[in-house]
Order: sequence, then structure tokens, then C-alpha cells
Amino acid sequence: MQSDLHRVVVVGAGFGGLNAVKGLARAPVDITLIDRENHHLFQPLLYQVATGGLSPADIASPIRHVFRDQKNVRVVLDEIVAIDVDAATVSGTTNSYGFDTLIVAAGATHNYFGNEQWEPVAPGLKKLADATDIRGRFFAAFEEAERTGDTSPLTFVVVGAGPTGLEVAGTMAEMVHSEKGFTTIDPAASRILLIDAAPHILGSYPPDLRKKAQDQLKHLGVEVRTGLKVVDITATSVSVEDEQGHTSEIDASITVWAAGVKASRLGAMLGAEVDRAGRVLVEPDLTIPGHPHVYVIGDLASLEQRGSPVPGVAPAAIQMGKHVARSIRLQLAGGSPRKFRYADKGSLATIGRSAAVANIRGLRFSGFPAWLAWLLIHIYFLVGFQNRLLVMIQWAFNYITRNRSARLIIRHRPTPPTT
Amino acid sequence: MQSDLHRVVVVGAGFGGLNAVKGLARAPVDITLIDRENHHLFQPLLYQVATGGLSPADIASPIRHVFRDQKNVRVVLDEIVAIDVDAATVSGTTNSYGFDTLIVAAGATHNYFGNEQWEPVAPGLKKLADATDIRGRFFAAFEEAERTGDTSPLTFVVVGAGPTGLEVAGTMAEMVHSEKGFTTIDPAASRILLIDAAPHILGSYPPDLRKKAQDQLKHLGVEVRTGLKVVDITATSVSVEDEQGHTSEIDASITVWAAGVKASRLGAMLGAEVDRAGRVLVEPDLTIPGHPHVYVIGDLASLEQRGSPVPGVAPAAIQMGKHVARSIRLQLAGGSPRKFRYADKGSLATIGRSAAVANIRGLRFSGFPAWLAWLLIHIYFLVGFQNRLLVMIQWAFNYITRNRSARLIIRHRPTPPTT
Repeated sequence: MQSDLHRVVVVGAGFGGLNAVKGLARAPVDITLIDRENHHLFQPLLYQVATGGLSPADIASPIRHVFRDQKNVRVVLDEIVAIDVDAATVSGTTNSYGFDTLIVAAGATHNYFGNEQWEPVAPGLKKLADATDIRGRFFAAFEEAERTGDTSPLTFVVVGAGPTGLEVAGTMAEMVHSEKGFTTIDPAASRILLIDAAPHILGSYPPDLRKKAQDQLKHLGVEVRTGLKVVDITATSVSVEDEQGHTSEIDASITVWAAGVKASRLGAMLGAEVDRAGRVLVEPDLTIPGHPHVYVIGDLASLEQRGSPVPGVAPAAIQMGKHVARSIRLQLAGGSPRKFRYADKGSLATIGRSAAVANIRGLRFSGFPAWLAWLLIHIYFLVGFQNRLLVMIQWAFNYITRNRSARLIIRHRPTPPTT
Repeated sequence: MQSDLHRVVVVGAGFGGLNAVKGLARAPVDITLIDRENHHLFQPLLYQVATGGLSPADIASPIRHVFRDQKNVRVVLDEIVAIDVDAATVSGTTNSYGFDTLIVAAGATHNYFGNEQWEPVAPGLKKLADATDIRGRFFAAFEEAERTGDTSPLTFVVVGAGPTGLEVAGTMAEMVHSEKGFTTIDPAASRILLIDAAPHILGSYPPDLRKKAQDQLKHLGVEVRTGLKVVDITATSVSVEDEQGHTSEIDASITVWAAGVKASRLGAMLGAEVDRAGRVLVEPDLTIPGHPHVYVIGDLASLEQRGSPVPGVAPAAIQMGKHVARSIRLQLAGGSPRKFRYADKGSLATIGRSAAVANIRGLRFSGFPAWLAWLLIHIYFLVGFQNRLLVMIQWAFNYITRNRSARLIIRHRPTPPTT
């Protein structure tokens, strides 16, 4: 790579960063793609790893492998500690990366809204380690009860009734029915609680689909409790406050946090205005004010279009990544960047086996057809042919046999930091 | 389960324990199978997980799932802390298990021969967590070199030139050639060293197969160094002493320990005589002296037959498990137990893609036929139909594309103990 080429630094190899780099495959640029993990993660299927249906490698592709044939990109495993937009440099743990164009696509993380002490007892679901952690806790809870002979039903609490919360709760409800081979306890008697402070589940969906999702959850045996605000979480309980201000304590073997996200701390390093969730307010062309060569995309970007915010979903990040790549190509060819336009392809929330709700271009449907649409779309977007094939076989097998083969409890030593 | 049934307690769900329990499927007994992990592990393929070729779930089956249809067994996830053969009880962390017959099949672990301080810097390969740990170190070493721009070739050291050492070294040598997408370093220039204190590799194999294995290792680019005793290991080096007493230090990015095993500490709890490796000296019927209802099988048992020790390999453990089940069934029917006879089905050591040596019933062969035999036998013995199918697809894919899809570095938080 020549140093006289236009240098593009991309921070983050999620859906946004990955698509920006792919979109520059044939551009005369020198790209450096930096991520603190060595793999791109297909986050929409992370709950399947957490519930033992898929293996980590099924939904993760090593970034270096994804770009092994794209010659204008250098992949670096590094953690960004500082960004200086005026000096046009990004600093990692030991290196500094100069740029002509910067794309920040660092995504979002769990938001405990100031209660970070809840994180160890109520893990969220953003990284592979989160998923294998929750998977281990879930199966260990049954093993512990079987060993001690405590036959009182286990309670699993999912906080947050957005799409992720529904997936986790719905899949857990299915799992407890497929847990066979216990002689003392009855896993099927377990309670799955889905709690949200809002009055409705799936706040961003139309009322009729919310109703359908609620019915499907009920059918699966998930107890939905809306209007309940979580005020405390311990290793064995969740304390909630109802709308009348009454508090109560729920015994909980495991609590999963799906209640909110906040932007990566990298957003604050740019010096631009951020919203309450820490997302960077971007211009219509996805640059930050005063810095036409600094782009922020994906879950880290805050942008309104036609009066409503562009949602923090994978399709938006993909579109933004592609848009920025196009803008850079246009500028290199002497043109000027265009405004980003989010094309809403619809929304899909899955609840379990044959259970889902879909709202695609105004067409609303639910149940098996929605679930099938969800399945096909997700397999289609999985990175890597082999992953797609293996996941399809695994799912077909799980669907027919109600088997979940990746029910592993792996006790890890703490991993030494690699960078 | 009735408490008036003959109570069989089995400790350990490796090849020995698993086959003992299966062999008692139709016997009028009340079995308790105790293991500290929730999964049976197909250890012969653990090196494939360590080198990114297979996922943990491909080679591990949840024990409870294996026995979901066998009604006379209760599976318990527990760690044994004491055994009282006179009182006929086994103690776990909180429970105590009474038995009429006890089968101890707790296996073996790494033997650092008094240098336990080497374990964190030179992990062995016995558990899933070991394999994902080594996998992470391996891929992180390349990432670190690429990030810092240090282009000096990496050195990977494997200590111990038995079958496991050969598999790890051979597979690593292949992997460094399939690592694509680096722009600064050249993974293919990496050195793989296989070190052993003995004068030969594969000490238990006939000389002509040793020679063939040595040739195949050389062809793969593995440097074999025999007659070198390891005297110290740090995070970045291995110090060795040659037969003339000269010491030297080898730079090592990663060191993998495959130099020896010692029996589980449970062997010492039985009060019977143990050998130097901590294995329990058993009677010809696999019981311990003076306790005709206490069996020790698998890698934990020490037994000589026709002048040579029964080897610590999977087929021996499987045969012992089946034998003990048969003895118990015989005794329940009023008969008396028989002597165990080890049927040596031969030995197979794999080195890499199309590279292996085999010695099956006197028939010695090497190269592709030996590798194919190894592959088919290992797939055949994988527990669970789905695992077999997925592993076969994965291998076919890897073989054609030289791809290793499970190249993941997952940084785990320390896992809280589950028992």
C-alpha cells in the first residue's frame, strides 16, 4: 500500500464498518480497519448462542478472514483510547493511526442507566462472551437445583421487552420444555418473566402486532409484566416498583438485561454534540459538524429523518456503511457527498419456534410466516457461506428434534488481555 | 427410582464412565453419574478446537442429553471432595452419595512433574476451556505482531512428542500457512518446534512408523528436537538442556504442554496403592484390593497385561467401562466377575491434513490412508448424530478450502464457580 493514497481509518467492524470497507473495495484508498475483537459478530443471533441453539463460531466471522481478498485494507486488532479530529489521528494502545477520512462505527453497549453495579448479576447481550456467560448461568441453574434437590420452580427474569428481550424470553420458555433427563426437578415448571417499565411491549411496533406478540408470548408460557420499573437487582432477586409506587421483590435464578443501550464511549472523543444516550448528532451526510472527513455511522450515530430517528438496527448500519463508502468514492472522483436516506425495510421480531411478528413495507403478519421470513432473512445476511450452511442444518435439526446441542457450561479462566 | 435397587455411583463421564452407564441401561440398578463438567468431551479432537477447526459444541455432548432416555440414571453436576470406601459413600460439595458399587472413572490431567508454575504459560489440552484458551493465544499472537509491526517470525513450541504433541504441532504448521489477510507479517514464516526429552518421537510406536511420522512432520515444516529436556518456561521463552548438559533458551510466542499426564487426585482418596503417576493399581477384574465393589477404570487405572501396561487411551477406557457393566450385571444375576482383557485395536496418530501413521492389528500404514482411517474412526465414535454430521461437513469444507472458521478470540470474564 502506498502512503500517497487517501487514508481511510474505520473504527469498528460491526455492520456499519464492515459495509463501509466492502464498499471501498475497488476505490484507490488505503484502509485501516480497527476493532478490539478479532471477529465480526452477527449480533441478531447472539440470543441463540445464549440459549444453546448455536455455537459462537456459527455467528462470528474473523474480520481478517472476511477481508482476506480485499487488498486495500489492513485489519488491526486494537483498542482505541483517543481520537484527535484536528490532528487527524486515532490512537490505539501502542500505535497511532493518521487518517484523511475517519469512519467511526463503534456501536453501542448495554445501558444500566447509572446502575452499573447490576452488570455482574444481570448481564446483557452484546458480545460472544456475554452469550456464553448467560448460557452457562442458565444451564448451571438447573444443574444446581438438580444437585441440591431443590424442587421449587426456577424463575428467569428478562428486563426489557424490546425485540431482544422478546427473543431471549421466548427462546428460554421453549428451552425449559426441551430440558430432558432431570430426575429431581421439573424444568418445564420454570417461570419466565418479561419485565418492562413501559406500559406496552415492543414500544416501536404498531398496536395490533404488539397484541399478537403478547399472545404468542403467553402461548409460550412467558409472563409479561409491563409498567414495572426495576429498582434493584441482586444475584438472586429483582426488585420492582409498579406504577402506583408499590415495590416488590421477585426471586430470580438468572436475570438478563435487555433494557437499553448506550453509545460507545468513542462518541464522546470526537468533540461533537451527543444525545442523552451518548450518540453523536451527525449532519445529513453522516459527517460531524465542521469535520467533513469524519463520519459517524451505525448505532453510534444520531440522526432524524422525516421527524423520526433512524433506528439503531442492523439494516440502518448497513445502509450507512454503504452510503459513506459511496460518498468517499464520489469525493475522490471530484464530486460532493450526498445526504443519507434511510430506507425502512420493515421490522421483524422473533419470539420462538414458529412465533414472530413482522411489519414489512406496511404488510403486517405474524406466527409461522413471520418466523420463516425472519429465519430466511437472518440466514441470508449471515457472513460466510459455511456459516449459512451449518446454521441452516443446525436449525433444521433443532426444529425437528427440539434439540439444543450447544448446551455447554465452560468454566473459563480469566483471559489475559491480548493488547 | 427405588432405593431398594442396587445403587451404582459412577464418578466421571469420560469414555470409561459413559460406557459403564450405557452398559447398565437395562440392568435393575439405580445409577448416579457424577461429573464436575456438564458435558462428555470427545478429547481426541480437542486439538481441533485449539487450532480453530472445530467448535466446542462439535466435540462435546451434554451428559444429561446423552442419557435423556435412560431411566435408571441420575446425572449430577458435582465435584467429589472425599471418598470413603469403608462407609461406602462419596462426598460432593454439599451432597453425599451412598453406593453398593462404585466406579471411579475420573481420568487424568496434565503432569508438569512438579513445575506447576508452568501451567499458566504452557497450558495443556484436557478441557474445553484449555482448547479455547490456546486458540485465543495462538490467534492473538499473530494479531499482536501485525499491530506492532514486529515482522520477526513467531515461534510456537509444543513440549512432548506423543500423539497429542504431534497433532498439535502438525495442525499448527498447517494453520500458519492458511493464515491469510495479514499485510505486515508473514504467518507462514512462523517456526513450529516439537520438543521431547526422549531420543525419539512417538515412543510407543514401532521404529518404521516413527520414521514415517518424522518425515511427515518435516514435510509440514515442523522442527523436531528430541533429546532436549525442558528446564524452564516463561511467557516468552522455553529453556532446554541437551543430552550433553548444555542449556539454551528458545523464544516462544506460545508454548503448549503435551508432555505428560498424571491421574486425577481422586485416585489417592481410595486408600489403595497408586503408581508414580498417581494411577490406582487394580486387580485383574478392575476392582481395588479388598473392595470387590469398588472399580477403577480408564486413565485412572494401572494394570499390566501380558507384561505391558494397558495404555491410557480411549479404546481401553471404553472397553473397561463395558467390562465393568458386564461384571455388575453378572453379579446381580448371581454370577462372578471376569478378568478384564484389553483388546488392542491398534494405534493411530494423526499429524495433519492427509498425514498420519497407523498400526492396526499389525498392519502398518501412513500418509493419506492412515489419515482417512483416523478421520472415519473419529467421526464414527463422536457422540451424537448431529455432531457427526456437522463435523463431517465442517471437515469436508475445511479440507477443500483450507479454511478454519472457528478462529475466534473470545475474552472471557472469569466464570463464577457453579457448584
